[in-house]
Amino acid sequence: MTDPIPPTIEWVGGAVRMIDQRRLPGELAFLTATTVGELCEAITTLAVRGAPALGVAGAMGVALAAHRGEDLDDAARRLEATRPTAVNLAWGVRRARAAADPVAEARALAVEDVERNRRLGAHGAALLPPAARVLTHCNAGALACAGFGTALGVIRCARVAHVFVGETRPVLQGARLTAWELQRLGIPVTVVADVLAGTLLAEGSVDCVVVGADRIAANGDVANKAGTYPLAVLAAHHGVPFYVAAPTSTVDLACPTGAGIAVERRPPEEVLEFTGRRVAPEGVGADNRAFDVTPAALVTAIVTESGVVLPPYDASLRA
Amino acid sequence: MTDPIPPTIEWVGGAVRMIDQRRLPGELAFLTATTVGELCEAITTLAVRGAPALGVAGAMGVALAAHRGEDLDDAARRLEATRPTAVNLAWGVRRARAAADPVAEARALAVEDVERNRRLGAHGAALLPPAARVLTHCNAGALACAGFGTALGVIRCARVAHVFVGETRPVLQGARLTAWELQRLGIPVTVVADVLAGTLLAEGSVDCVVVGADRIAANGDVANKAGTYPLAVLAAHHGVPFYVAAPTSTVDLACPTGAGIAVERRPPEEVLEFTGRRVAPEGVGADNRAFDVTPAALVTAIVTESGVVLPPYDASLRA
Repeated sequence: MTDPIPPTIEWVGGAVRMIDQRRLPGELAFLTATTVGELCEAITTLAVRGAPALGVAGAMGVALAAHRGEDLDDAARRLEATRPTAVNLAWGVRRARAAADPVAEARALAVEDVERNRRLGAHGAALLPPAARVLTHCNAGALACAGFGTALGVIRCARVAHVFVGETRPVLQGARLTAWELQRLGIPVTVVADVLAGTLLAEGSVDCVVVGADRIAANGDVANKAGTYPLAVLAAHHGVPFYVAAPTSTVDLACPTGAGIAVERRPPEEVLEFTGRRVAPEGVGADNRAFDVTPAALVTAIVTESGVVLPPYDASLRA
Repeated sequence: MTDPIPPTIEWVGGAVRMIDQRRLPGELAFLTATTVGELCEAITTLAVRGAPALGVAGAMGVALAAHRGEDLDDAARRLEATRPTAVNLAWGVRRARAAADPVAEARALAVEDVERNRRLGAHGAALLPPAARVLTHCNAGALACAGFGTALGVIRCARVAHVFVGETRPVLQGARLTAWELQRLGIPVTVVADVLAGTLLAEGSVDCVVVGADRIAANGDVANKAGTYPLAVLAAHHGVPFYVAAPTSTVDLACPTGAGIAVERRPPEEVLEFTGRRVAPEGVGADNRAFDVTPAALVTAIVTESGVVLPPYDASLRA
C-alpha cells in the first residue's frame, strides 16, 4: 500500500529532493537542493525540519559534497551550524562522513529511518488504551522524519479515536503539518490554540500526551518544541501519561542533563509578525526560544525503535 | 497629567465612541456606535472587549436605546446575548436599566470604573516585590476597561522592572494590545509565544503572574482568557504567586463554582485562519473556547478595588 504521505527527503539523481514544508498545507510542493549551501538554506528556513529528518538531511548534505568532489569537513561544519538543538543533525553528518560511500550511506539512513519509525510506532501503540484520545504538539510525523513519523507513527499504529494538536506557535507546525498528515491518514483531528490543552486535560478529554523530541539527555531530560514542557506539567497535574517518541539517535549520552542542551533562539519576527505582517507594535521585542526542556521526572516513558524505556532513565537509556 | 492611553469607551454627543481595538497596534482609530445594533456588532467583533469595558458598553447600550426612545428591555436582551462569559456585561446593562437616567448612569459608570481601577492598582502593587518581573496574559489593561486597567493597573502602580506577555492566541490581545499599552507607558515588555511561559517560570525569570478575570464564582474559581489556567498550574508548580486583578463587579455570587460559568465558543476560523489567510488544511476543525476556568486553589490572591481578597474565597468574597 502506498503511503498517503510522500517521502519527506530523498536522494534523486545527484540532488536532495524535499517536500517544501513552508508551503504546506496550502500546496504540496518539492524543493531540490543541488549544493550544500542550498540544503543549509532549506534547513534554516524550515523547508525541512524535525529531528530525524534533520539527521537524514545532514547525511545527504555530506553526500552532496562527496558527489560534487567538495571538502567534506567544510560541508560537515556548515551543516552542523544550521540548527543547534536536534542532536540527530550532527549524528547524520557523522554517519555519512565516516562512510566509504557517503551517498549510499545517506540513502541507507533514510530507508533505516522509516523502518525504525515503524518499529517505534508498534512499541508505542501497545501503551495506548483502545480508541485513545491523544494530545500532541508540533509535528513529529512523517514530515519530521524520512517518513512514517515518531509520535504520529505511534498514533498511526494505535488506531486512535481522536487527536488534538496545538497549533504550535510561532511556526504553526501543528496546525499546518500535523493536521495535514492526519487528514491524509484519515485520523480525526482537532486543532486548538496551544493554551487550550489545559482545558482539554482538565475536563478529561485526553487519555495521553505523545510528543517527539529533538534531544534526550542521558538522564532522560527531553528537549522538544517550546510548549512541550507546559504540556508535561499539565499532564502530571491531571495524572495523564506523558510519552516521548524518538529514535535512539535522539539520545545524547554525552549530554548528562537537559541543562547542557543548547536551545535555539530563532528570529523574533517569527513571533512579532505573521506572513510578513507585523502584529506587535514596532519597537517591541520577543523572546523566541524554539525549544524547551522537560525534566525526566515528568516523562512517563520514552518510546524508541528498540522498545519502551522506563524510568530511571539514567540506567535504562544506557542499556 | 494626561493618560498616555485615551479613553477606551465614552459617551460623546448621543453616541458611543470607542477605540477600535481590531485595528491596534497598527492604527489608533475610533469607532462610533449610534444604535444598539452597531454597538452589539462592535462587541461581538471585539472592537471593544475586556470584562470591565463590556460592563460600560452594556450600560452605554441601554443609554443609546433610552436616548433614541427605543425599548429598553429589547436593548438589554440584545446586549446581554452578545458575549456570555464576562458577567460585567449583564451587570452594566442592569445598572443602566434600573437608573432613572440611563445616559447619566452609563457615563458615571465609566468614571467609576477608572477610579476603581486606580484603587485596585494601589492595593495590588503592595503585593509585588520591588522591581518585579511580571508575567501577564491577554489584555487586562486600560483597553479592557474604561481606562487604567486591572492587571496592568497593578503593573502601572507597582513600578515593575519588566513585563512578559503571552501573545494570546488566537486573537493576539497580548501581542497587539498589552504590548501597545506598555510601550505607551514606558514599561519594558517582551512578547512571547504563550507556551514560552513554561520556560520563563522554570528558569526563575518571573516573580509573579498577574491576570484579569471575566467572571469569578462565589468559591473563587476564575474564568479568564484561555491560557490562564495553564499559567496557574505552572505558577503553582514553580511556587510563583498567581494574582487575579478584577473589580468586585466581576464576582458573581450567584454562580457557586466555575463549573457554572458559560464559556464562549468563538468561530473556529479565529484559530484556523490568520488575518483572513487559511493556515490549517481545509476541512480540519478547531475547538475555539475563548476562556478557561482556574480553580480557586491555584489563586494566591484576588485583588479588587476594595482590597486584597485571600483564601478561603467562599467566605472572603462574600465579605
